[in-house]
Amino acid sequence: MIRNIHPLASISQGAKIGQNVRIGPFTVVHDNVQIGDGTSIDGYCELGYPTSLAEGAPLIIGKNSIIRSHSVFYEGSNFDEGLVTGHHVTVREKTIAGKGFQIGTFGDIQGHCHIGHYVKTQSSVTVGQKSSIGNFVWLFPGVLLTNDPNPPSDNLLGVTLSDYVVVAVKATILPGVLIGKGSFVAAHSLVNQDMPENSLISGVPAKRLCNASDMRIKGDIRIRAYPWRKRYVRGYPDYIIKQWANDLDSVSF
Amino acid sequence: MIRNIHPLASISQGAKIGQNVRIGPFTVVHDNVQIGDGTSIDGYCELGYPTSLAEGAPLIIGKNSIIRSHSVFYEGSNFDEGLVTGHHVTVREKTIAGKGFQIGTFGDIQGHCHIGHYVKTQSSVTVGQKSSIGNFVWLFPGVLLTNDPNPPSDNLLGVTLSDYVVVAVKATILPGVLIGKGSFVAAHSLVNQDMPENSLISGVPAKRLCNASDMRIKGDIRIRAYPWRKRYVRGYPDYIIKQWANDLDSVSF
Amino acid sequence: MIRNIHPLASISQGAKIGQNVRIGPFTVVHDNVQIGDGTSIDGYCELGYPTSLAEGAPLIIGKNSIIRSHSVFYEGSNFDEGLVTGHHVTVREKTIAGKGFQIGTFGDIQGHCHIGHYVKTQSSVTVGQKSSIGNFVWLFPGVLLTNDPNPPSDNLLGVTLSDYVVVAVKATILPGVLIGKGSFVAAHSLVNQDMPENSLISGVPAKRLCNASDMRIKGDIRIRAYPWRKRYVRGYPDYIIKQWANDLDSVSF
Repeated sequence: MIRNIHPLASISQGAKIGQNVRIGPFTVVHDNVQIGDGTSIDGYCELGYPTSLAEGAPLIIGKNSIIRSHSVFYEGSNFDEGLVTGHHVTVREKTIAGKGFQIGTFGDIQGHCHIGHYVKTQSSVTVGQKSSIGNFVWLFPGVLLTNDPNPPSDNLLGVTLSDYVVVAVKATILPGVLIGKGSFVAAHSLVNQDMPENSLISGVPAKRLCNASDMRIKGDIRIRAYPWRKRYVRGYPDYIIKQWANDLDSVSF
Repeated sequence: MIRNIHPLASISQGAKIGQNVRIGPFTVVHDNVQIGDGTSIDGYCELGYPTSLAEGAPLIIGKNSIIRSHSVFYEGSNFDEGLVTGHHVTVREKTIAGKGFQIGTFGDIQGHCHIGHYVKTQSSVTVGQKSSIGNFVWLFPGVLLTNDPNPPSDNLLGVTLSDYVVVAVKATILPGVLIGKGSFVAAHSLVNQDMPENSLISGVPAKRLCNASDMRIKGDIRIRAYPWRKRYVRGYPDYIIKQWANDLDSVSF
Repeated sequence: MIRNIHPLASISQGAKIGQNVRIGPFTVVHDNVQIGDGTSIDGYCELGYPTSLAEGAPLIIGKNSIIRSHSVFYEGSNFDEGLVTGHHVTVREKTIAGKGFQIGTFGDIQGHCHIGHYVKTQSSVTVGQKSSIGNFVWLFPGVLLTNDPNPPSDNLLGVTLSDYVVVAVKATILPGVLIGKGSFVAAHSLVNQDMPENSLISGVPAKRLCNASDMRIKGDIRIRAYPWRKRYVRGYPDYIIKQWANDLDSVSF
């Protein structure tokens, strides 16, 4: 079996490491961890951070993933293939994520979340406990998904973001709010109520201004900005781009 | 003496390490550091980061504390027992904190702060230099306590938060502002003036909307949300819970 | 040649390390890196993080710089002398910065940026790709410079901040916006249009309220707050302070 494990990495005997896995210097992999083939882990990472809250469930990192330096993953979460992280990321227990999940630098995924396929978060995004995120969702820098309707309390209510939702920089979604499919939340908004699909949502507190699909590209009023999948496909697999080209939005994975 | 110090940790000869202390791999403890009994330090931490601004004062970590990975503490700060941090925390010099201080992941405590007992900050909270925080205060994700009334300047004016104050997500408190006892600052607010006790504070700039004690639990109008200590006691010591049950809010420690 | 390289640092043979350089424990320096004389690198840093996007360009750190712990610099960026960072900083490829650049803790410089001389960012500042920043600019905690006018897209439009601009806490500048010389952006603002020089800018969305030079110091209405260089010079080199004293604002470096 071919692997590239740095001599200054510390890998527990119980960890299950796939083929063609690279592990960088000063990284610790605990016992209760499974790493898929072709995955690359940078230095200074700690994988499978022990917690009783995982109730014994392993940390599973799917194949062909990239975890960048100084990142911490607790045991008890499960990532499908193609996970990519920035640096200095923390991910807690009992989160389940689909294919191609991207977590930006300084990302904070607080656990007990359900995350669909090809969700992309940019830097400094906080995904609160119990969040539920559909497929093809984008979270831009500084976005915060909250969960406590009566802070402090223990009755956490996660946010629900439907497929294709885009949340622009520094927007905050309050506990229990559901954002409908294909909606766009504008920069700096504070969303305190459910919103139907295809909404342009903006303000503090946020209101539905119009259909998201009424928005045009800045600089060219002939091109609709949303649904974004009709104009932006970089980085998605060919089989998904083909389904989008055939006007399918409920993609088969 | 029983200790559990990882062979890849680097502990200076001058550091004073208590009994039953655990120190993880790749952690550096400098000379001018005292760590209390029963404390656990994860990997990749640097404790007692040297600075002339500490004027020779040591870093003191009280007993039964937990410092999570990738955290940096400067020399010259003093934490009472039961400190708990998330990951990737930085704490500068000359901060004094009481019992049970919790600092969330990506916390940034900028030094010269006075922090009471049982203060809890969640992730990505920035506590500016010269902040003064009472007992039982909560700071939710993304909260920022500022200090420079004329940026840039050297005449810093810290924020003062009284006992039992709750600051919700992403609120910002401007320099020199005093928030009275038991007040609640709503999500995303920008507070630019002093507020009396028991205030519900909201907006940009923030206004006093009503008494905090007029707010009800979301989903049950029969239950007052504040003072929160009448409905939420998880994680506090029994002797405090008993005093609260006897309607004492000025708790004896 | 005198150097102080920790035995647990890992320095590639190809790296060019100047004289009187200090490198801390557990730091990795890759091949394509040049570090100037008198520079100090803390522990847990990774310098010259490889990326094909650098197209072979080296990471250059100027002389007399200080890089604090847990920081990551990609190859392909170039920093003039006197760079100073906080902890947990990430800097990507193809950024060029002048003398005395300061990056606060949790700073995120996303690459392809042009940054002038003596720019200072405080903690948790995000400088998006393609940002252009003049000389003597201040960015306070939580400031975000964005770049995507149609998220998600690939047609990034960076922000331009002119000389002496001050952006207060948590303000966000939207893509492609130009802020004129000496302007002040108030805390928590969202700036969505170009602003002329010497503007006081505030609000969501932000408006020009008056001249920045009309603002007085809080607590003393006799003293103008801006231009700040007339009242605040700490930390700048003598030859610059002299030019300011002679009422030169276009300083010769």
